[in-house]
This record gives sequence, C-alpha cells and structure tokens, in this order.
Amino acid sequence: MNCEILSVGTEILLGEIANTDAQMISQGLSEHGINVFYHTVCGDNPSRLLDCVKAARARADLIITTGGLGPTCDDLTKETLAQAFGKKIVPFEQEIEKLKAKMGDRMTPNNLKQAHLPEGCTVLDNAWGTAPGCAFESDGCTVIMLPGPPRECKPMFHQRALPYLREKFGGVIHSNYIKFYGIGESAMEDKLRFLMDSHNPTVAPYAKEGECEVRVTAKADTEQEAEALCAPVVEQIKDILGEYIYGVDVSSLEEVVVRELTERKLTVAAAESCTGGLFLKRLTDIAGASACVAGGFVTYTNEMKMQVLGVSPDTLSKHGAVSAETALEMARGARDKSGADIGVGITGIAGPGGGTEEKPVGTVYVAVVYGEREDVQLAPVRRKWSDRSYTRHTSASFALSRLLKMINR
Amino acid sequence: MNCEILSVGTEILLGEIANTDAQMISQGLSEHGINVFYHTVCGDNPSRLLDCVKAARARADLIITTGGLGPTCDDLTKETLAQAFGKKIVPFEQEIEKLKAKMGDRMTPNNLKQAHLPEGCTVLDNAWGTAPGCAFESDGCTVIMLPGPPRECKPMFHQRALPYLREKFGGVIHSNYIKFYGIGESAMEDKLRFLMDSHNPTVAPYAKEGECEVRVTAKADTEQEAEALCAPVVEQIKDILGEYIYGVDVSSLEEVVVRELTERKLTVAAAESCTGGLFLKRLTDIAGASACVAGGFVTYTNEMKMQVLGVSPDTLSKHGAVSAETALEMARGARDKSGADIGVGITGIAGPGGGTEEKPVGTVYVAVVYGEREDVQLAPVRRKWSDRSYTRHTSASFALSRLLKMINR
Repeated sequence: MNCEILSVGTEILLGEIANTDAQMISQGLSEHGINVFYHTVCGDNPSRLLDCVKAARARADLIITTGGLGPTCDDLTKETLAQAFGKKIVPFEQEIEKLKAKMGDRMTPNNLKQAHLPEGCTVLDNAWGTAPGCAFESDGCTVIMLPGPPRECKPMFHQRALPYLREKFGGVIHSNYIKFYGIGESAMEDKLRFLMDSHNPTVAPYAKEGECEVRVTAKADTEQEAEALCAPVVEQIKDILGEYIYGVDVSSLEEVVVRELTERKLTVAAAESCTGGLFLKRLTDIAGASACVAGGFVTYTNEMKMQVLGVSPDTLSKHGAVSAETALEMARGARDKSGADIGVGITGIAGPGGGTEEKPVGTVYVAVVYGEREDVQLAPVRRKWSDRSYTRHTSASFALSRLLKMINR
Repeated sequence: MNCEILSVGTEILLGEIANTDAQMISQGLSEHGINVFYHTVCGDNPSRLLDCVKAARARADLIITTGGLGPTCDDLTKETLAQAFGKKIVPFEQEIEKLKAKMGDRMTPNNLKQAHLPEGCTVLDNAWGTAPGCAFESDGCTVIMLPGPPRECKPMFHQRALPYLREKFGGVIHSNYIKFYGIGESAMEDKLRFLMDSHNPTVAPYAKEGECEVRVTAKADTEQEAEALCAPVVEQIKDILGEYIYGVDVSSLEEVVVRELTERKLTVAAAESCTGGLFLKRLTDIAGASACVAGGFVTYTNEMKMQVLGVSPDTLSKHGAVSAETALEMARGARDKSGADIGVGITGIAGPGGGTEEKPVGTVYVAVVYGEREDVQLAPVRRKWSDRSYTRHTSASFALSRLLKMINR
C-alpha cells in the first residue's frame, strides 16, 4: 500500500507555515508500514487542486488530504475530491446537529458547509474543532480528508484516520521507542546493524538534536502479540547499549529526570551561567515539575556568583568563572541556598564572543552535587559546530544526563 | 513567473524532518513577487523523481530542487534533472580543485561526484558545505538545484539563487518587517486594510505565536529606490499603530530588550515562578545579553520566594503566591539581591494542575520595578486555549513587553 499526502493551503506555498501535518502523518504511516511516496502541496485553487488529485489517484492507493475543510469559499477540498471521484456533496443531518450544538450563536450559514460531505462517506468526528473529516473508497483508492490546523490534524489522524485504516486492513501495530544519550548515531547503528534487516519487528534508528532514538515496530493480529514481538528485541538492545539508554517510550531527558526525582522524593536546584535559565526552563516544561524542582539561580555576573551563591573570590580569581572549580561551587551554592537535595552548576562560554585560546567558545563545565557525591565534567560540545543555541542546548542536555546518572548510581 | 519547489529526500517522506527548506524558499520567493504554485516531495528513487520533474516542467517556469546533491549513490537529483532536460553530466575541473581543497584527506572517489554537474550550467558555489549547487535554463524553464541540509540550503538560496534570479529578471526587492506586540492580527488588519491593496510596495500581515508582523515590500531598479518606496508606508503604519510596534527589521522582542537595555547601560534581573527560567532563557538567547542581564532567580517554592528573594510571609499567606503583591515583591527582590537596575517578577499557574475557581490555570502576574516606578499586570493569557507551553510563552513575552514599556517611558 502506498500513500500520497496532499496538503491544501496557500499559506504553505507562501512559506507562512511549514508543512508539519505531512511530517506528522508520514511518521505515523511509516510506523504502520505504509509507504509514503509523495507529498504534494497545492494552493486554494480548484483547477490546480483537481489536477493534483488526478495525479495522486493515478499513482497512490491511499490519498490523505490536509486542509481546506473550513467554512469559507476558499475551502474546497471536499468538493474537489468528490468531483474527481464522481461523488455528490450532500448534507449530513447528524453533522448539522453537532455543528449547531458546537457553535451555538456563532453559527453562520457558511458554517453549514462543513456538514456537507461526499455521499456515502464515513464521517470522522472532529472533537478538536468544528470541521469534521471524512473517508471513502472508490475504484481501489482510499481517500481520507483531515482538517489543516495541526492541533486538529494530529488527533484526527491518530484517533480517527489510523483506526479507520486498521479496521480496513486488519492487524495491529505496536512500537517501542528507545532513547539514547551520549552515543552518536553512527556508533549506535554500528552496534545494532545486525538487527536492522529484520522484518517483524523492524528496527529503525533516528538522530535528533544531540540524541538518538531507535524505533522497534511489530505487526500482529492483536496488540498483545505485537507487543510480545517487540519486547525481546527491546531487551536485546538494552543488553547491548544499556549504559546510553535513558528511557523507553518517554518523550525527553527532562521528562525522565522529573519522573525519577519525583519517585525518589528528591528535589533539585540549579545555578546557571552560560545556559541562562535554559536548564531550569527545560525541567519546568514538564507538567508536575514543581514536585521536584525547588528553583534556581541565573548568575551571569561574578558578583552574583559570589553574593548569591557564595562562590569564593579566590576560586574565581585563581581558576576563572569558567572552570570545574567554579561549576562545583555554583552547584553547592544552588543546593545550599535553596535547601534542595541536589545542586547543579553550569558555567561556560556560549559565544559568539568571550572565547580565548585556553578556553574557546563551547567550553562548558557541568557539576552535580548530592550529599557527599560530587561530579564535574566538561560538556561534550563539538566546538567546530558550535553556535550559541547549539552550545546552550547541548550543555543543558548534558547536565540533565549527569543529574540522571547521579541519582541512578 | 511561477515556481515549483521539488524536494528530494526519503527522510521527509518518512517524517523524520519537516520540509522547512520549502517553507524558507517559499517565503523568499513570495517576498520577491514570485508565485509558488506547488511543493512536491519525492524520495530518492530515480523513476519517481523523473516523473515529478516532468510534471513540474509542464506546469512551472522555475523549478527549485532541494536535496540529493551529496556524494552517495542515493543522491541523484543532478543526474535526473539533466536527463529530463537532455543534458550531460560532465566534470567541472574548478569544482574538483575546490573540493580537494575543502576535503583534504577525507576526500573519497565518491566525493568527486559532487564536482560533476550538468554541462553549461552556472555553478552556485557552496561556502557552507561540500556540494555545490547549480542553475541552468532550458526551453523557457529555469532550474536551480540547492543542497538539502537547511544550514546549507538557506544561505545558498539567499546568497546564490536569489542573486542569480535577480540578475536574470532585473530589478531589486526591498522589504521592511514591522513587529507588533499587544494587538491581535484581525484588529491590526482592520486598521491597515486600506494599505493592503497597494501593489508597490505591497503590505502583507502575518501572525506568529501571540505576535503580529507586517511586511512592506517594494520592487525598483535600485536598492535605494526600493527603500524609498517602502519608507513612507512604514512611517504611515507607525503613525497608525505605533503604540503596538516594538521594532522594525528586528528579529524578536528579546533582541529589542537586550539592545535597548544595553544602549541605556541598564541591567535587569528576574525572579520567575511559573515560567521557570523561560524569561531569562529568552533574554540570554541573544548574543551579548551578558552586557545587560545580571541574572535571576527561579523560585518555585514559597520557601525560596521568602529566603532567596525576601518575599514577606504575610504577603504569601494573605494574597497567595499567585498575586499582584507577590509578583511585585519578587521583582523587588530580584533587583535588590542582584544589584541590577530593574527587577522583573513573574508568578502564576502554568497548569495543567494547580488551578482553582478563583485563580484558574493561566492566571499569571507580571511585575516590573525600576527605581520608584512599579508596574504590575495580569498577563493576557487566553485561558480557554491555555496549555502549559502557551501560558509560559505568552507570560514571558508579556514580561518582555512590560520591561520595554518601562524603559521607554
């Protein structure tokens, strides 16, 4: 089965937004073993859209459209798809009632258009917006239409389109995502190469922003069977590369840190220099962070490092603000001044200015202190690539990973 | 002139990355008055790519490709485009020399492929990577090929492809970007509607993450003339909506805040609760922030608010941690404990938990204190949309805007 994703929207062609719907759908289909051979983006123009639909129909078994389901005259996806497949657009009474209930007084005659759908189609109820999606089959081609706004498109795809496809084609897909920190993609691939030719489950590597991920995906008749196919492969990968794995089926390092701290009833505070709040920002992105994050300090100046954190003037003059010694005293200060169990200190040169021969841009020290245990490391910033944003992100990720190491020791 | 952007890369079809190259190119072309009618994404498959090129050639005057210029056998964009337009691929001696100079010892026979280009093409020198781009004309169609990695594609488009197109088609384009905070897109459009039908300059509105932007673009024979066409319209917009404008041709609120503070030799410190470091993170995203950011405090707990910032226990028990009074005392504490000139305090409920009937999720107070002047406001978080990330971003943006108001008063 091969799919074409056809996105309708002049705003994409003007570059106002990236086509993230197509990315999200591609990812979901690829996890389900459905090949995507083309993405096409077309504006709100009926004749160009009709040509695109005809081309898609000739080369794909499954067409998923995004966008153009709204109430205005610009929104012509349903009409054009119906035309291409020789179907009429008819009012769906139940959808008219739902729309009235959703919109109340704000309902205009235009809105009614959203409850007109291709005859005989399966309505995909939209619990996240007003425009319902729909699906139909015709001449061996399956057509699914989804709304364009990503906050509607994503749940509509996962909770409406995928179940529709599963019911049609049978079987169940299960995926596990294994997250790595501290190993490069090629080193990881090298160790796991022998698994990557297997077919059920399939094993696929990804690299993202200084981290790697492996997806293990199996198909079976039931969820349980699919899970059972994945489980031994996940265990095998843990055996081989366990030291680099920070979680399975988790979304981020910060999510794991918040969970592990909370489970252990531990609290953390940080003192940040070059990351300027980014480390704490990432921790507090996670809902529930207040259970384990006491707070912290952004100490850009030497004065603040001394007065707020109690870093000694001697340390600063002898070793400099960017040094293992200062990072350690910052971590101790963050812990002691906040009353948290664990302190983290980050100090370095984010650039573009401020580098020296001895301490070039990208030199960042990360310290973690917890009771008697103290750890301080140079962050693995690859200097030749370093820009400010990369250096800050990499340093904050490294601090999260060292914190995790400290509490898991 | 109408353009099709043809992106080549299986990683896009697998959903590993979004097609941000196409967005960036669309944006640039639209500023230059070139219509983009289609985006097409195709995998690293020669016959499907050839079909896409043929379709593009039949419907576009300008084809810009991204991706597939690398050294591996997967990289077949040049070969396929040359085939479609009946051209040979030939070695370019000068490019071979450049490649040898760039790669030195890492040069492999594969890499040589990158110096083979369609005969008679204009080489687009790649100063940001190893694979050169190229451009040619054939049968009234202009073809431009750019590398795929965004950090190469973007400068190659702006510094190679656009000058190539300008030279071909004559004229110069100049744009000014006017940035707004504190006014909605529809209210802004309403006030500027009368300008939006003009043709030279054109006036186009955009909405982004709680802010708005207006682009004023003119075409002329020289840069100076084009600028002169834009200038009076920019002034006119300033006259009408000046109170909401935070900058012209600037990249962000935080950039303007850092510049204005630095120019005035003022320093700022912040105390953040619900934003958890995001406000300071955004300020310190800006290179040179160390000139005006003293640092700050993330005080999640009441204990830290009292002990670190000196917020009074009475204030906390009488008004609560989320209150105008606490925000003010946090701002004063941030200023006094850091020695900065200006203090900012942010306290609120980011959610999803922690809301009450009296203070629902999305209730955030922002205070700014500077000498005798004190300002405290409820942040304009639209509660029905609020998720944690939106609430935090909106609150930090609002704090940046209040800080700007304070120093510009």
